[in-house]
This record gives sequence, C-alpha cells and structure tokens, in this order.
Amino acid sequence: MAGVPTATPIRARDEDLAQVSYNADGLVPAIVQEAGTRQVLMFAWMNEESLRRTLDSGRMWFWSRSRQEYWCKGETSGDRQWLREAYYDCDGDVLLFVVEQEGRGACHTGNRTCFYRAFGAAPE
Amino acid sequence: MAGVPTATPIRARDEDLAQVSYNADGLVPAIVQEAGTRQVLMFAWMNEESLRRTLDSGRMWFWSRSRQEYWCKGETSGDRQWLREAYYDCDGDVLLFVVEQEGRGACHTGNRTCFYRAFGAAPE
Repeated sequence: MAGVPTATPIRARDEDLAQVSYNADGLVPAIVQEAGTRQVLMFAWMNEESLRRTLDSGRMWFWSRSRQEYWCKGETSGDRQWLREAYYDCDGDVLLFVVEQEGRGACHTGNRTCFYRAFGAAPE
Repeated sequence: MAGVPTATPIRARDEDLAQVSYNADGLVPAIVQEAGTRQVLMFAWMNEESLRRTLDSGRMWFWSRSRQEYWCKGETSGDRQWLREAYYDCDGDVLLFVVEQEGRGACHTGNRTCFYRAFGAAPE
C-alpha cells in the first residue's frame, strides 16, 4: 500500500523572503511544477501570508482573488500538493514551487495539469 | 557544428485563441519551459498581439509593462527562444510555452533559468 506523502516544511531564510516583491494588490504569481515529471501543473496567486503558510506547512496555500480568501490546494478535493522545492525569480516577483501531486491531478476538470489544451500543432 | 534552431510557427485554431482571456490591462501571464529538460525558464506577460506574433513567428514575443513595448526574447542578447509547443490553462487566463533555448539561457543574469534561487532547504 502506497504511503501518504509527508509534509516537508521549508525553513526560509529572512534574506530570501525579503527578496520577494508583491504587486499593488499584495500578490505574487506562483507556478506549480510536478516533481519527477517536471510537468507544469497550475498557476495561482499568493500573498505574503500564503507564502509563509506554504513554506511552514509544506502544503500549497494560495490567495483566491475572486473569493478573497486563502485556499489550501486539495483540502476539499483530496488532490493535495506536497511541497518539495521553492524558488523565486531574478526580479523577485514570481515564485516557482516543485510539488508531489496527490490524487487525480492539479486541475478541477480532472486533468493532471491545467495546461491540457494546445493552440494547435506545428506543421509537419 | 550545431545548426541554428529553426522557427516552427504554430497555426492556432480560432476557437482556441478565443478561449484566452486578458486581464484589465489586456495582459495574460506566460510561463516559458525548456523542451527536453522541462526546466521552467522564465515568466513574462503577453497581450493579444504578442501572442499572435509568437505563434506566427515561432519566436517568443512579450509585452514589457515597464517600457510599454513589445520585446522579442534574445533579440539583443542572442539568447533566443524557439517555440515548440503552446498551451492555455483551464480558465484560459494563463499561457504555457515550451521552447528550445539558445545561448546561455533565459535569465539576464547569465543563469539558464530565472528561478535560480531557492528559499532554503527542507530539513534533513
């Protein structure tokens, strides 16, 4: 029987956290990539508190702009994401998280990734 | 001697292009991932015209919010990106591009990826 993934909180350095800049709404884009396959699973927004919750808990916490509330990925669906690595970009205004994806996948449609539709194919 | 990568324009279906929704500023987030390694290289913004230029030319075109102008990745640095696959997410408000990265890499710092700094390590 496969075990339940374990949470691995990340102890962030203050000097790294201080590098993150938030937009006028206090938000920063967050890209979520699957460990192993390296597939890009989804994209959402974080504020400073959701970044702290994510690093402290080892689970992915986002800020919903439409509902104006925190949400923890998979809390209701069971399709939880377990933090493995966390990065910030050269300008400090985009975040990248590598996670272990539990359940069906990241997308509410039932697809493993939210990016399941292509714009077309390159000509042969 | 390695050849120069070739451009492979993507002929997008109108029904796919119509799925893309732009924010109040007419922009949509664009994630760029490297073909092969699947490394997430960078993040930038596109408007409708830069998406069309990207698909039509097979080169990555973005919109600079600070300079309020179009920019083609690698046009001055030579670190060009050659489009291989293009996706949009379930809500149609985020784009993902898989590219062949030429030159040193995607980041102006000389790093291959813009996400070269981690928040710390998980405890052993």
